Amino acid sequence: MSAPLDLVVEGAAEIYTAAGPIYSAGTLIGVQHGRVVFIGSKTALGASPWTIGEGTTRVDAAGGLVTPGLVECHTHIVFGGDRAGEYAQRATGVPYLEIARAGGGIATTVRGTRAASQEELVEGAHRRLDRLVSFGVTTCEVKSGYGLDLDTELKILRAVKALDADHPVDLVGTFLGAHTVPPEHKRSREAYLDLVVEEMIPAVAAEDLARFCDVFVEAEAFSAKEGARVLQAGVNHGLKPKVHADQLTGCGGAELAARVGAVSADHLEHVSLAGVRAMATSGTVAVLLPGASLFLGQDVRPPARALLDAGVPVALSTDCNPGTCMTENLQVMMTLGMSRLGMSPTEVLDAVTVQAARALDMADEAGQIAVGRKADLAIFDVASHVHLPYHFGVNHTRAVVKAGAVIWEASALGVGPR
Amino acid sequence: MSAPLDLVVEGAAEIYTAAGPIYSAGTLIGVQHGRVVFIGSKTALGASPWTIGEGTTRVDAAGGLVTPGLVECHTHIVFGGDRAGEYAQRATGVPYLEIARAGGGIATTVRGTRAASQEELVEGAHRRLDRLVSFGVTTCEVKSGYGLDLDTELKILRAVKALDADHPVDLVGTFLGAHTVPPEHKRSREAYLDLVVEEMIPAVAAEDLARFCDVFVEAEAFSAKEGARVLQAGVNHGLKPKVHADQLTGCGGAELAARVGAVSADHLEHVSLAGVRAMATSGTVAVLLPGASLFLGQDVRPPARALLDAGVPVALSTDCNPGTCMTENLQVMMTLGMSRLGMSPTEVLDAVTVQAARALDMADEAGQIAVGRKADLAIFDVASHVHLPYHFGVNHTRAVVKAGAVIWEASALGVGPR
Repeated sequence: MSAPLDLVVEGAAEIYTAAGPIYSAGTLIGVQHGRVVFIGSKTALGASPWTIGEGTTRVDAAGGLVTPGLVECHTHIVFGGDRAGEYAQRATGVPYLEIARAGGGIATTVRGTRAASQEELVEGAHRRLDRLVSFGVTTCEVKSGYGLDLDTELKILRAVKALDADHPVDLVGTFLGAHTVPPEHKRSREAYLDLVVEEMIPAVAAEDLARFCDVFVEAEAFSAKEGARVLQAGVNHGLKPKVHADQLTGCGGAELAARVGAVSADHLEHVSLAGVRAMATSGTVAVLLPGASLFLGQDVRPPARALLDAGVPVALSTDCNPGTCMTENLQVMMTLGMSRLGMSPTEVLDAVTVQAARALDMADEAGQIAVGRKADLAIFDVASHVHLPYHFGVNHTRAVVKAGAVIWEASALGVGPR
Repeated sequence: MSAPLDLVVEGAAEIYTAAGPIYSAGTLIGVQHGRVVFIGSKTALGASPWTIGEGTTRVDAAGGLVTPGLVECHTHIVFGGDRAGEYAQRATGVPYLEIARAGGGIATTVRGTRAASQEELVEGAHRRLDRLVSFGVTTCEVKSGYGLDLDTELKILRAVKALDADHPVDLVGTFLGAHTVPPEHKRSREAYLDLVVEEMIPAVAAEDLARFCDVFVEAEAFSAKEGARVLQAGVNHGLKPKVHADQLTGCGGAELAARVGAVSADHLEHVSLAGVRAMATSGTVAVLLPGASLFLGQDVRPPARALLDAGVPVALSTDCNPGTCMTENLQVMMTLGMSRLGMSPTEVLDAVTVQAARALDMADEAGQIAVGRKADLAIFDVASHVHLPYHFGVNHTRAVVKAGAVIWEASALGVGPR
């Protein structure tokens, strides 16, 4: 009795499974019906019921590295407009507060997002998602939070849902109505919180538009107490909590995340030692976003080593957004994780696979290569997982496999007169 | 009388000429015999002797940005082996001195480079050069300095010459025999300097293998006095001086560069105020390499603003090398120039075009778009020069034109089941 494989990955120099063994050259991955059914040598394949037949898609890793499809666990890729002009102002020394007072900052993106149609939002996010895929991503979280009114928050999350239906990548929606107090509510923040809690969250839940409810706990946004109210309302409607915590100042965001059993606390540049300990106890994942401080020109580094040493799971993400980190390159976040945060090669690989999946409460569904799991794979033109963060700023992706189908392939780099 | 163009670039949203006007949409660039012969509107083209004929290659910038082909003015792309393992050690806290004592650091690359054949060196550098082209580069400097003996230094520079003959990009060789004292001369540094001055430099000059002579002035490498001796020997043999200056400590490298009339002083993280003033007077170009401190996890920033405000021309480069900055992405250096060094969009664009050309003493040959100049062009999928550094970590290049020929084109990003 023999069963032909739908797809086989051959020729890898290394297979990094994440939270499992690292296989060396000579190991094949066999896929059927979208799932991994075989990992082993050619000899072992011969002794198994699985066969490579005429209908089997053969993916040649060509001496490269195979990892789980990368998991991008913190993005804001649905937005209108851009903030290139503000970036130039900030780089050359105009203070953020001055930009904000002139109607810039996040308000710029809120205006652009309110003005865009749902179709326009889908179109822009589709382009960004394709870029994320080109860097190896097969699962992606997307937050709302550039609407800050009921209609626009729903429009953003409907755009995420439409894109999820249309695109091979799995998308996960997060409601972030409590991103900041919108301009029209600056003198009535309580009224805005009421709107978030009493109207937005129920409406988001009723349409099943999000898996998570997030809040930006920060001096300029919401207090830990206000955050707790929003997250509790989310929980009441089946949305699991996440927290934007301690990015610009230490505001007790990590402690709040631990207290409410948040799936993740994100940023953490200014987390307290008590916050680290609380997260270790609660099992909350730390999502570190080193591209944001780089883009903003800050020297501050989240304490990755202290978090890891305390036993906190650490994930890495781009934070892809138009204001504080305009990039879809998740590979370079691994480099920043090593160069800036002192993480090891295996720690940064795990941070964009198995730990990022945990940050999305999807550890059983994504972020690992194992028999029985969905065949989400990224294939890179590097000799080992150590080389992926080392050689940075260039896209090493050779091919991306989602649920057993090749959804992206690099073309040859060839230079020459043509 | 009408003359057909060989190539025309149409459809740009913006043409950034560098050190000349910024043209907006509706402007075409016409090329004949490898040179720009026309810049202007379609109407102006109609009134000119130039015509678009059947033999004219039409390049569609598709609403993108056209800039001069980028000039990469400081690389070490000819080497053997890699240092991914050491990068992992360093990131996780092993001190560089410990790595060096165990035979690692630059000595690793010297061993790898000595062991490689000239053909192997050309092959590796060819791959890196192709990647540089993919980021928009049409002119590239390459240093020796991983040989540190006569034969290997010559082998490296011959590899550069062979690659220059074989590849459409213009390469410029720099002799950096005084990169560090090689292991076998640790107890006889005078003898090594004699070797550099009395044998290597004359041999390099005799084969016309380099345009520049460079020296690493640093506590762990060579003193300013030793550097002066090497550079003077270079000048005596027709090699123009360059200096690796003040990277890890302030050692008077900038002052030396100004004193000997060096074309550029490179790195400058710890340059003194006196050094800045001296460079302004001498007209020495500052080549800043922000990727190196990023890769090394350092917060230190070269004082770009102080240099610019003093009137020093500032260039940016990758420093592409296996030990302290393993990347070919010159676009991301523009982002670091803004986010980390406080430069403006026009300053970072100029830094990788006209100023980088000055750092190679090629201001008349490269780094600008103007009628009569060689048609070296980069075409990017961004709306303006402000967007190129803003949206970072992704490769925006659509096409690269070298001396009037399209030498590289991006393929579509398309994601989907296939």
